[in-house]
Amino acid sequence: MIDFPALGDIVTKTPSKIVMLVADGLGGLAHPDTRKSELETANIPNLDKLAGMSATGLTIPVLPGIAPGSGPGHLGLFGYDPVKYLIGRGVLEALGIGVGLEAGDVAARGNFCTVDGSGIITDRRAGRISTEESDPLVEMLDKIDVPGVKASVYPVKDYRFVLKLSGTGLSDQITETDPQRVGEAPLKVRPISSEGAATAEAVNAFVAEAQQILAEQPRANMLTLRGFSILPHLPSMVDRYLLSPAAIAAYPMYRGLASLLGMKVIPTGSTFEEEIETLREHWDEHDFFYIHYKPADAAGEDGDFDAKVRTLEELDRHVPALLDMKPDVFMVAGDHATPAIMASHSWHPVPFLLHSKLTLGEGVECFSERALGSGSLGRFQAEHIMLQAMSHADKLTKFGP
Amino acid sequence: MIDFPALGDIVTKTPSKIVMLVADGLGGLAHPDTRKSELETANIPNLDKLAGMSATGLTIPVLPGIAPGSGPGHLGLFGYDPVKYLIGRGVLEALGIGVGLEAGDVAARGNFCTVDGSGIITDRRAGRISTEESDPLVEMLDKIDVPGVKASVYPVKDYRFVLKLSGTGLSDQITETDPQRVGEAPLKVRPISSEGAATAEAVNAFVAEAQQILAEQPRANMLTLRGFSILPHLPSMVDRYLLSPAAIAAYPMYRGLASLLGMKVIPTGSTFEEEIETLREHWDEHDFFYIHYKPADAAGEDGDFDAKVRTLEELDRHVPALLDMKPDVFMVAGDHATPAIMASHSWHPVPFLLHSKLTLGEGVECFSERALGSGSLGRFQAEHIMLQAMSHADKLTKFGP
Repeated sequence: MIDFPALGDIVTKTPSKIVMLVADGLGGLAHPDTRKSELETANIPNLDKLAGMSATGLTIPVLPGIAPGSGPGHLGLFGYDPVKYLIGRGVLEALGIGVGLEAGDVAARGNFCTVDGSGIITDRRAGRISTEESDPLVEMLDKIDVPGVKASVYPVKDYRFVLKLSGTGLSDQITETDPQRVGEAPLKVRPISSEGAATAEAVNAFVAEAQQILAEQPRANMLTLRGFSILPHLPSMVDRYLLSPAAIAAYPMYRGLASLLGMKVIPTGSTFEEEIETLREHWDEHDFFYIHYKPADAAGEDGDFDAKVRTLEELDRHVPALLDMKPDVFMVAGDHATPAIMASHSWHPVPFLLHSKLTLGEGVECFSERALGSGSLGRFQAEHIMLQAMSHADKLTKFGP
Repeated sequence: MIDFPALGDIVTKTPSKIVMLVADGLGGLAHPDTRKSELETANIPNLDKLAGMSATGLTIPVLPGIAPGSGPGHLGLFGYDPVKYLIGRGVLEALGIGVGLEAGDVAARGNFCTVDGSGIITDRRAGRISTEESDPLVEMLDKIDVPGVKASVYPVKDYRFVLKLSGTGLSDQITETDPQRVGEAPLKVRPISSEGAATAEAVNAFVAEAQQILAEQPRANMLTLRGFSILPHLPSMVDRYLLSPAAIAAYPMYRGLASLLGMKVIPTGSTFEEEIETLREHWDEHDFFYIHYKPADAAGEDGDFDAKVRTLEELDRHVPALLDMKPDVFMVAGDHATPAIMASHSWHPVPFLLHSKLTLGEGVECFSERALGSGSLGRFQAEHIMLQAMSHADKLTKFGP
């Protein structure tokens, strides 16, 4: 969490309402021809106008120069130190497909691969076989019986799957089977510490059985496993902020992550319009709403500049509906930048605005990477956003006499 | 190092090249008549133009309000926590005159001084005797024989010299002989911990011998020693960043410091033009180049505003030659400000720019203390510069899933 132990002394419960709109992959970079970023190219009059009346700045997700994954990027937004609280790859992959995890479960990311006659990996992704081809394999693996442990296998997409182990005494203190390169055989799992011994044995037993089952399969005759991880213990936002927080997100991973932080996950549809409708319907039930907008990141990851511009314009059209609900604090934030010219997450500072009746309104001319940095919040750690939100919502009293 | 343990997991080796131009003492303050700083007074069209196309900001060398020496100032630039990794005065002085130090050597800074008939210091700097006068004294001291230890004495300048002790079991855990004021006698060295006992004895034996040798000298009849220090263990940039780093610096101290960090020190001439030529000749051999420009600091330390302006204009004329080599990341940084009106290092935030194809280009109008702060990097710790450089050079992958 934020390194501020006195927070518990000054946090109070008030009726005010906070809405945090997270536009995934919000920031961008300039198009080489126009030298304008996606935000600068987009026609976003509502956000532009709001920026001028808000406290604005640029947030640093982790550290200057560090591009975060979705896990660390979101943890920072909710006030959790993203370096201290790591969510493992297996757990995040499981959350991403909506697999329920209990305390003590171990999750891993699995790849189907191909090996030659002597067990050497020849393709780490089994020619990127389709979901249709991998689904029956997943079903076969899901039937594997490991003594003392319940092993469940879930399809993700193409050559990817999730392995979940449930039972007593399981641990994430084990090595991976993926040698990370072709030309080597998958590795046996070894315990990293003594507490991983039983889990290593269970995983090796699972893999041995899977090897036999897959041996005669034409496209994918082996698998690798990595990112063994358990649910981290994350302090609840309910206790930390005395909030009744809710999450509205179309994608399972963000719902899973929110539920790890103690947010109530409200079922919603697959579009942002439906997310907003969900927010409206549950307006009276919560005092903090995290609402997630995915398309900007997806277009950025695709490297499609014009598509990202369109997603931002679409987002802009929905801003009035959100403001109409009259939140006491309304924020537009991003978990990280996803510049279309990079087609990946990046480390660049992320546009941020906070609007409340207690913001001066700095008159910045538009909602863009270049303009927002001149606002009163400057560049600051995303981890401090929640403190700003709580204060502007009259939920933090003075620190110290 | 940067407090980011996951760095080792995300650092990768790529062919891209980084050039860090360190303009020593880069930042300044306004001239009382014109209210313009040295950078604002100088005609620096190349830097001005580059600033507009770069990510810009102001770096904080150590902490807001802390003026660093050259050691901490440079350590931060290379990503080393300048508070944690201290280079002792003796070692820095030795590096500054090109004295080679081995692990286990102890170095101290020496002053010639004058004492009265009862051994009380009357002038701590022996009337600032000239190098010509002190050189023969240094030669005499260098002949002193201390049992079990090799003592070497090197001239620095005027009344200053370096004492180097080599041998087994030496330690920096000893007190100084300099009482730091006139009216007192030089102090005996005492061990601070038990491991300093033998070294204290050796130093006291050296001083006793020196006292006899100097007793009849007319200008400087005694000496003081302080800053006993050993080579610190600094993690190598090679291991930390997977770089093949090189240093090009005309001044010995910067070469010595770079070599402590694992950089290959390339021999070069005494002018910046020669340094650039060296860079060009060795362009294919390294992926990180630190190139040092000293004159700005020297003019600032002299309190010569106009001279500092001229050094900045000279620097500016060389910028195109550096850009012509097409580094993937080009940075202009400073280890600290040296405002001419202060004639000393200062704590002010230091102008910084980073140019790469992944910088938005914030359109700041010129390269100055006032203008650069409005860029996307804002004010940030110099210690984070290397993360920015590595990311912009595509040498860091995403942190966390």
